[in-house]
Amino acid sequence: LYLTETEIKKIINMELALNSVEEAFQLIALGDAVTKPRERLPVGSSSLNYMSAGIDKQNLTGLKVYVPSKNGTKFYFHIMNALNGEMIAIMEANALGQFRTGAASGVASKYLAKKDSKKVLLIGTGYQAYTQALALDRVFELDEIYVYSRAEENRMNFINNYSSAMKSKLTPVADIESNVNNIDIISVITNSKTPVINSEIIESGVHINAAGSNHSLRRELDTKTILKADKIFVDDIDQAKMECGDLIYPESLGLIQWRNIINFSDVLKFPDRFKRNFKDITIFESQGLALWDLVTAINVCEIAKTKGIGEKINA
Amino acid sequence: LYLTETEIKKIINMELALNSVEEAFQLIALGDAVTKPRERLPVGSSSLNYMSAGIDKQNLTGLKVYVPSKNGTKFYFHIMNALNGEMIAIMEANALGQFRTGAASGVASKYLAKKDSKKVLLIGTGYQAYTQALALDRVFELDEIYVYSRAEENRMNFINNYSSAMKSKLTPVADIESNVNNIDIISVITNSKTPVINSEIIESGVHINAAGSNHSLRRELDTKTILKADKIFVDDIDQAKMECGDLIYPESLGLIQWRNIINFSDVLKFPDRFKRNFKDITIFESQGLALWDLVTAINVCEIAKTKGIGEKINA
Repeated sequence: LYLTETEIKKIINMELALNSVEEAFQLIALGDAVTKPRERLPVGSSSLNYMSAGIDKQNLTGLKVYVPSKNGTKFYFHIMNALNGEMIAIMEANALGQFRTGAASGVASKYLAKKDSKKVLLIGTGYQAYTQALALDRVFELDEIYVYSRAEENRMNFINNYSSAMKSKLTPVADIESNVNNIDIISVITNSKTPVINSEIIESGVHINAAGSNHSLRRELDTKTILKADKIFVDDIDQAKMECGDLIYPESLGLIQWRNIINFSDVLKFPDRFKRNFKDITIFESQGLALWDLVTAINVCEIAKTKGIGEKINA
Repeated sequence: LYLTETEIKKIINMELALNSVEEAFQLIALGDAVTKPRERLPVGSSSLNYMSAGIDKQNLTGLKVYVPSKNGTKFYFHIMNALNGEMIAIMEANALGQFRTGAASGVASKYLAKKDSKKVLLIGTGYQAYTQALALDRVFELDEIYVYSRAEENRMNFINNYSSAMKSKLTPVADIESNVNNIDIISVITNSKTPVINSEIIESGVHINAAGSNHSLRRELDTKTILKADKIFVDDIDQAKMECGDLIYPESLGLIQWRNIINFSDVLKFPDRFKRNFKDITIFESQGLALWDLVTAINVCEIAKTKGIGEKINA
């Protein structure tokens, strides 16, 4: 089965993505799934990137593959049968990736942020920002999402494009430091090389999703913010050690230790152990797991088959 | 472009494969290509396997992916554009893999074995054996290929199936130790867990291709054979350290050192340095490089496009 972006966009929605990513974390918590960090093979001026995952009981395995490109990266995802080795589906996976990345911040916030969170600050209005906002809009009964981007044009475009899709009110902010108070959740989704959040804006009780970086040389949160956090969660500790610049940098200075960083799946495994204290500052560092893609892709494919969507290859 | 096994079998031949694998080694020697060892992700009772390669100047990159299965593994190969990230081709890659594996032993033997080699001993008659024999049949003016397999039925089937495709005479042998003399090249292509070659049959001047194993726990050559060799070559030293049981085992005992193992591409880089002494015993340990697949796949695709073979996906 071959599924194009257009076909997948007809099927995918945030509810499906949120359920899929939560299912993925549950599978990790149960020990029934495996996910392998991204590999990068440098070629010419770019690189081939790939990451994989598998689900034991379903005997399904998947591989995400892409070459980052300044003119728009194209992601592909493959689902394979782990019993007989058959290729089940080849999917164009840009929307898939956007929805699962947003959903991951949504699921993390559902478990880590205040249950009655009302105010969100979104930092970044690029390729991945919409699904970050949408996930929180669906998980919580929000009042307002403040939208920050350095360029006013980007802020306004974002609000014009996406206001109608949200239950929450979208409000542009020109300056994070002075214009925003009583934020419950901050989602940072940038491709910054230097930290975009200044620790001084971080108030007690806030939960932060840092979802923009997946490279050790990129950072979104400054060291003071990392040190201010009461608990820091990652999607996968092995991948974080390779890719999470926000943590790799302070760890290299001896300011934090990997043994104090928590795999988010442990929150599902031991729900009582990680209950939020009201004033806790929590951080979810999201590098992105191939298992999120795999579970979401499986669920998308089921619907595609039911609806007869997609092209059969070599039929 | 999607190419099936049937379509690829119409295009591929040993000459194309030999040229492709030699081109691949030349690219490594020139520093113009990169190849990354196999990764294995355990899923259920099997695993997802993948390995990648790239060619800088052509801006092409490729990924081989498969799930080993007792009922017949299906290999897939993807070619991607490393500039814009477009998927160029998805190919069913069993024949591709068989031809490039055979061709690698052919190319290694061309440079490492005696130029006037006349007698070959083929050990193993399974899935990969035919192309091992065919490659040597094409590279040398052989008199005879002795074919050994434990089961008489397998030996005879191999000879009945493939005699007509070879210039050389195929002769079954029931017993390696006593029936075979003056062998110039031995190709071992088994999936044995314990060594199949006994060092006593190894005479001076022989070149050995050990191409069957790609797992650290599998061995084809016993330690005495390894120690008897004057020079040992590998397709890629990084991959050999992970997968080459024939070398990993004696190295773990301190009997050999990795620094004495030679990357085969160095033979193309420094042709004078590795000239054969007449009585040398040489070994080529072949784990299999994704770059062989990539160059061969590119050459197959060129022909497919010219001939209008293959299915266009999402056209």
